[in-house]
Amino acid sequence: MNKQTCDLLLTAERILTGTEQRIVGPIAIAISDGVIRKVDTLSDVEALYDAKKRIDLGNALLMPGLINAHTHVPMTFLRGFADDLPLMEWLTQHIFPIEAKLTDRIVSLGAKLGMYEMMRSGTTAFVDSYLLEENVLAAAQSMGMRCVGGEAVFAFDTPAYAGWDGVEQLYRNLAEKYPQGGLVQVALMPHSVYTTSDERLKQTMSLAEELDLMLHIHLSESAGEVAQSKELHQGRRPITYANDMGLLNERTILAHMVEMTDDEIELVSHSGAGIVHNPVSNLKLASGFARTKEMLEAGISVALGTDGACSNNTLDMFETMKLAAILAKGCSLDATAVPAATALRMATVESARIFRIPGLGVLAEGSPADIIALDLNEPNMCPIYNELSHAVYAASGKDCVMTMVKGKVLYDHGKYTDGSYTDVFAEMQDLVAWVRSAR
Amino acid sequence: MNKQTCDLLLTAERILTGTEQRIVGPIAIAISDGVIRKVDTLSDVEALYDAKKRIDLGNALLMPGLINAHTHVPMTFLRGFADDLPLMEWLTQHIFPIEAKLTDRIVSLGAKLGMYEMMRSGTTAFVDSYLLEENVLAAAQSMGMRCVGGEAVFAFDTPAYAGWDGVEQLYRNLAEKYPQGGLVQVALMPHSVYTTSDERLKQTMSLAEELDLMLHIHLSESAGEVAQSKELHQGRRPITYANDMGLLNERTILAHMVEMTDDEIELVSHSGAGIVHNPVSNLKLASGFARTKEMLEAGISVALGTDGACSNNTLDMFETMKLAAILAKGCSLDATAVPAATALRMATVESARIFRIPGLGVLAEGSPADIIALDLNEPNMCPIYNELSHAVYAASGKDCVMTMVKGKVLYDHGKYTDGSYTDVFAEMQDLVAWVRSAR
Repeated sequence: MNKQTCDLLLTAERILTGTEQRIVGPIAIAISDGVIRKVDTLSDVEALYDAKKRIDLGNALLMPGLINAHTHVPMTFLRGFADDLPLMEWLTQHIFPIEAKLTDRIVSLGAKLGMYEMMRSGTTAFVDSYLLEENVLAAAQSMGMRCVGGEAVFAFDTPAYAGWDGVEQLYRNLAEKYPQGGLVQVALMPHSVYTTSDERLKQTMSLAEELDLMLHIHLSESAGEVAQSKELHQGRRPITYANDMGLLNERTILAHMVEMTDDEIELVSHSGAGIVHNPVSNLKLASGFARTKEMLEAGISVALGTDGACSNNTLDMFETMKLAAILAKGCSLDATAVPAATALRMATVESARIFRIPGLGVLAEGSPADIIALDLNEPNMCPIYNELSHAVYAASGKDCVMTMVKGKVLYDHGKYTDGSYTDVFAEMQDLVAWVRSAR
Repeated sequence: MNKQTCDLLLTAERILTGTEQRIVGPIAIAISDGVIRKVDTLSDVEALYDAKKRIDLGNALLMPGLINAHTHVPMTFLRGFADDLPLMEWLTQHIFPIEAKLTDRIVSLGAKLGMYEMMRSGTTAFVDSYLLEENVLAAAQSMGMRCVGGEAVFAFDTPAYAGWDGVEQLYRNLAEKYPQGGLVQVALMPHSVYTTSDERLKQTMSLAEELDLMLHIHLSESAGEVAQSKELHQGRRPITYANDMGLLNERTILAHMVEMTDDEIELVSHSGAGIVHNPVSNLKLASGFARTKEMLEAGISVALGTDGACSNNTLDMFETMKLAAILAKGCSLDATAVPAATALRMATVESARIFRIPGLGVLAEGSPADIIALDLNEPNMCPIYNELSHAVYAASGKDCVMTMVKGKVLYDHGKYTDGSYTDVFAEMQDLVAWVRSAR
């Protein structure tokens, strides 16, 4: 049989494919044009492929890159600026006054720092919404991170747009610039049911349908939001109201959903909408406990996100994956709830849903080569009975030693391959004085 | 003024002393004979001390080593062996059958691996209870880790002792070998109220009093334990029963305490006993939520622990510290509960209580030189508004680059200074096949 040539052969001792495929012994992945061509034992892959280049990761665990399904990555510029505060005091006295003075430069810098943090901690793709979001999309494109982003849509004007015409024009331009299936994509991102209007919500869904984009919105994050929704929307809880606005369907991914009645779980399940669970943020902001176990039992697609670095304060998806698994057990008093395999699926395949890219979230033939490697020489990864258990319960994002997106190495054993980390780091530190004075 | 000579000068950019002392600018700590002599700005310390040796940590944050107040460190040999199982199935079908075949070698190996993991992740001291615990104490002494350990005391015999005479003799020997105030110390560790007896509990407290040792016991870990206690102990809940056995006083540290009524919180508060909160284990084993905020408000000393690597599955006290802070917020729906300063105090000063060593848990003149350094060049530590926030909310144990106990560097930028890590790591991997066959 004639051997084929691949761009890259990635080898390591162990693998979690995320599929039914179990491979024991030295592993290889053949990659060409950013796509996985073959995943198997080293000997089987070498029998089929000659490689232009090889990367041997040694005693490492290859696995799908984690996907952060809800964040506001520019907010890393405010990491640790204000903690331990009631939500409204935190927002109105600390966050909003600074966000009112946002510039393209700050958004871009924050996005870059956040992306370095994500690639450093094993995240290869993220879903983002913020102000002046075009800077995030551009930064993701230039840094090689997979991203679905959307300008936050409010009922009021922002530095990025004026009126619905402005929103619409902005989104049309972005959708043209970042088409479906690319490294960087666009989704409609109305902010919430308490910062928009009946009309604005209907407009966003209508535009999402016309442009065939997904739609992502914060929903039912806290008891406070439920109370506010009842007041603003003729007694309707956020989920009922969102349903009335035509938001609940397969095009929609709902962030948080901490407050859900049994009926609402059933409603969302039947609608086909997905949910993003953000356990660290929900605890830190004292929003409460999402009913993850019940959501999953109802057949809802539940993804995982970190939320912004202000309410977390990291973008470490390994931390989020572990907390999602153990918090569901604590809440349900059932140690079998959200087992490791489910938690990993939430952080990969379910989080990939909004990207609409076949094979994203697993390591299989035809999947994008979005791959990470965990160092197995660390004490917390020893001994090994079960790689899956270690990935979910023992690993931290800091155990990641290599991060690859679309076949390109972004992070490799302490080095960020794009070469600008030091500059971004220094510029970000310089922002501290400005932020302090801007409050 | 004549300058004094110190053994070591440790310098870095930033510090969290854990005391009221705030120091801005380049920092130095002068250390002699394992004790901190001076903590101040570099220029002030250099004006007072000539150093025999200097270690410059550069852009790092010095802080007190974290103290793991409840663990079973040999259990690292079973990390990831069995997860996502109901407690009784997990214990009886997976853990106990293997523990029945424990040997000194396995306990020693597990302890060493666990200690490497702790020093790697910024923990300088730990409180441990297990079978054949003498191996843990010996390993801690030889590896330079600070430890309070105690053989688990049951009503039945174990490989370490037969009858109360055996327990007593074992503890008298250990207490003589590891006297109070040393690097390694001993405390009485009756296992629980469901594995002992009235007599055994009274005997342990009596021996603790005679030898002037602290006493540490698992208590009120789950609803199941409460139900069992009522059955075993004439309708008494674990805390009432423990009180009746004379266990609740200032000599006692109680692990878990997940199930507490208001009255029990008041009872413990008045008794002077301390509590160790183990949030990761409590969630993973589906034990539930300790009422941390209420305990603290009642004036109880609440320490933090990881529990064993089987029910966590790491020994990372940074993870535990963050979870303690955010879980208390989520449980109380109060974002101001357990702020960063409280969480750090729990993981240091409160966790130090059982050691009875003045100054342990803070960086101050006269404190033991148990010091760690976090790398501030990592993206998750950028930008810096507040070092305390980063230590609690943004750091992982993997951000630790230097760990020192009693003035001796145990871990330094990827190297374990005792030189036997590779051997322990390899031996531990070899245990995997034995464990699988032993079940």
